[in-house]
Amino acid sequence: MVQATALPRNESGIEAAIGILKQRFGDRLQTGAAIREQHGHTTTWITNQSPDAVVFPHTTQEVAEIVKTCATHKVPVIPYGTGTSLEGHVNAPAGGVSVDLTQMNRVLAVHAEDLDCVVQPGVTREDLNTHLRDQGLFFPIDPGANASLGGMAATRASGTNAVRYGTMKDNVLSLEAVMPDGQIIRTGQRARKSSAGYDLARLLIGAEGTLGVITELTLRLQGIPEAISSARCSFPTVDHACQAVMMTIQYGIPVARIELLDEMSVRAANAYSGLSLPETPLLLLEFHGSETGATEQADTFGQIAEEFGGTDFAATSSTEERNKLWQARHDMYWACLQLRPGAQGISTDVCVPISRLAEAVVAAQDKATELGLIAPIVGHVGDGNFHTLPLIDMENAEEIAKADEFVSWLNDLAISMEGTCTGEHGIGQGKRPYLIKELGAATQYMAAIKAALDPHNIMNPGKILTG
Amino acid sequence: MVQATALPRNESGIEAAIGILKQRFGDRLQTGAAIREQHGHTTTWITNQSPDAVVFPHTTQEVAEIVKTCATHKVPVIPYGTGTSLEGHVNAPAGGVSVDLTQMNRVLAVHAEDLDCVVQPGVTREDLNTHLRDQGLFFPIDPGANASLGGMAATRASGTNAVRYGTMKDNVLSLEAVMPDGQIIRTGQRARKSSAGYDLARLLIGAEGTLGVITELTLRLQGIPEAISSARCSFPTVDHACQAVMMTIQYGIPVARIELLDEMSVRAANAYSGLSLPETPLLLLEFHGSETGATEQADTFGQIAEEFGGTDFAATSSTEERNKLWQARHDMYWACLQLRPGAQGISTDVCVPISRLAEAVVAAQDKATELGLIAPIVGHVGDGNFHTLPLIDMENAEEIAKADEFVSWLNDLAISMEGTCTGEHGIGQGKRPYLIKELGAATQYMAAIKAALDPHNIMNPGKILTG
Repeated sequence: MVQATALPRNESGIEAAIGILKQRFGDRLQTGAAIREQHGHTTTWITNQSPDAVVFPHTTQEVAEIVKTCATHKVPVIPYGTGTSLEGHVNAPAGGVSVDLTQMNRVLAVHAEDLDCVVQPGVTREDLNTHLRDQGLFFPIDPGANASLGGMAATRASGTNAVRYGTMKDNVLSLEAVMPDGQIIRTGQRARKSSAGYDLARLLIGAEGTLGVITELTLRLQGIPEAISSARCSFPTVDHACQAVMMTIQYGIPVARIELLDEMSVRAANAYSGLSLPETPLLLLEFHGSETGATEQADTFGQIAEEFGGTDFAATSSTEERNKLWQARHDMYWACLQLRPGAQGISTDVCVPISRLAEAVVAAQDKATELGLIAPIVGHVGDGNFHTLPLIDMENAEEIAKADEFVSWLNDLAISMEGTCTGEHGIGQGKRPYLIKELGAATQYMAAIKAALDPHNIMNPGKILTG
Repeated sequence: MVQATALPRNESGIEAAIGILKQRFGDRLQTGAAIREQHGHTTTWITNQSPDAVVFPHTTQEVAEIVKTCATHKVPVIPYGTGTSLEGHVNAPAGGVSVDLTQMNRVLAVHAEDLDCVVQPGVTREDLNTHLRDQGLFFPIDPGANASLGGMAATRASGTNAVRYGTMKDNVLSLEAVMPDGQIIRTGQRARKSSAGYDLARLLIGAEGTLGVITELTLRLQGIPEAISSARCSFPTVDHACQAVMMTIQYGIPVARIELLDEMSVRAANAYSGLSLPETPLLLLEFHGSETGATEQADTFGQIAEEFGGTDFAATSSTEERNKLWQARHDMYWACLQLRPGAQGISTDVCVPISRLAEAVVAAQDKATELGLIAPIVGHVGDGNFHTLPLIDMENAEEIAKADEFVSWLNDLAISMEGTCTGEHGIGQGKRPYLIKELGAATQYMAAIKAALDPHNIMNPGKILTG
């Protein structure tokens, strides 16, 4: 495992705050080792840093009470959704109280006529979509994991649909949050656009819980399209596939999803999901629209694909076939792990301008080969975002060092290509050095904002910013 | 005119800073009364508060020098684009230096394959679109005025295309800015999405120059659609028109524009633009897509419109007819002024959830009638945003008082309907009391951010925040 630096602990404060909170929350505050460890656990290779207690609030007011108590005693507060973040976001390097929001899981309102809804932060994206289905609505952001909407906002998550529907930053109308001093704010109301003052919603989205706890979200919804069709197409090389992606986007086809699997990923999907795809780079697409529109989009893509050497093009509007393909895409993490049973997958998350994508993917493949790493690649290529998943034997220090070298090299490569070290996973503990490489002086102003809003650094300390 | 409060002036600092800047910039620093007054002038009913000097930088480095000099002497810096803002944004209530960015008007790069471009802040939206046309690209944000892109970002502008393409917040990939201490930062690179740290781009967008001077913008572009068609349809009442809008949006028709003109606005358009539209509420639409797609969208809308009592539906893909209609829409401000020659138009800018739109528009019409005001209404109704334009005799104090009552009443109404006092114009000087009504405690954190980044309050003081 990669060691995360521990920060100084305020032992007396922690003891005092937990005492008060225990009295207030009874069994809804837990201090057992297993639950604490579970709340420090993240799907990452960073070591577990458990909080001292986990508390399960039911209301915004209760979150405010918790934060106020922790503020009084200068004790860290770590918001927790489903624990599916990837960069050590829920670790507690200075100890403190994990605020588990899973019991704040009510859909408070659906305004179908306004295409918006109001939810508590613990509602997961799958729960929300189940809730919405009867009304012909859906929430498009799909990060793969069945994450909580609060967590998705906190990490500025996106996923396969972002090429058409944007990321969390584009799909939140407003937030309610408990600020580091315990005060409750609302960043806006339900207007679909506003020029009223600083965009505090966008500031909290992606702040990873370091500026406050998100306690309610007003989300934009979409009507379920009349028709959904999907397509797949194989390409001789990653470069051919990426050229086809670029042309598709430039041509203005409003693809809902356009995903790349490299050779190794296709091999993994075939084995894990019982498919028999040609084991060359693959694009997997989805089209939303009217019956005519979705078909036309698929046809146009088919023509573009052919120009770039695409073969085995297959489009379908059958729900069953579509679900099978997309299930395979969503199972890629597990499929890839089967390429090397027992190994841990370390996900990277770079995003580059699409014109540099082929070059970046090929360079990543070559670098992994050079280092002797097994590292399948999948990508949200319409956005230029791709994930490599080096499969690492975590008992082997030399291999870990190589993985570390790979991750570091890849982040630097993306930054050198005018891209970012993180398209959708966030900075957390793991990527803090790269944030500085990427944004330089801008990070000083992030630190100034953090210091102004959270002068005692109690909100999720040790994340995003160093020091 | 409405008086804007003057703020204390730092006379000695102003004198010192202007002396230094004069020496550095020579004729590019101007102190003549006419030019100073022109730079305090805004299309608003707020009194002119001229800066003490106007300086015309050519580079980001020069902007940084100006800001550093002003920071050293604690002198206000007021960024200036085209002066088309509507809420006193470029006034200088404490004097200081207006930084006119119109000579920073170069398109620095167009990356057609990435659908982005890099521009200086003084490039206007029309200039950019002229520059892009040959490459089959366009920038969709259209606030009516031929504003500068820096100014549009600063006020979080939008306009007729926002229902499909979003606002400035959705179409800026990253910004370069000179911060209040004179340091130059970049908020991101060219990746289409990023989860790297606090979203400083979104913080600067809509900050109205109070947190820094935007010196470069990396913008998302769109491919010019294969087909553009437009349609118009008349309705018996505003309510019928709004019901049709709601259904159109819910149905998922990706309208590019959907604009409402009330009876009085249609009358004004007929007279000014030589049209002969039925003088009842009108929807004006534009559809972007493939040939088939654009036609299908128009047809589907036609069916929806009929359900809601629409008459005189006319769709066209003729460029000439389309341009005539949209020219009439863009000329609405001038057309409305002709309803009462000599009067000044005072634009409101509320935005409400679309389910409340009909109620809000009708209430605004009734209230204007009750107060004896002539107040035509046009609206970006796909977003729930509409503008009333009370036509006021600025020599008549009683009328001004009534206009003031009307504006205040309307802002309060929108806020009570879970909407906002400003959909796209911003807060400036004029709407500061409504920002507090709308967002309450959240404004304290805006003030904390402002104080942290600009401790001496030199960046466009007296805007957005009170005190």
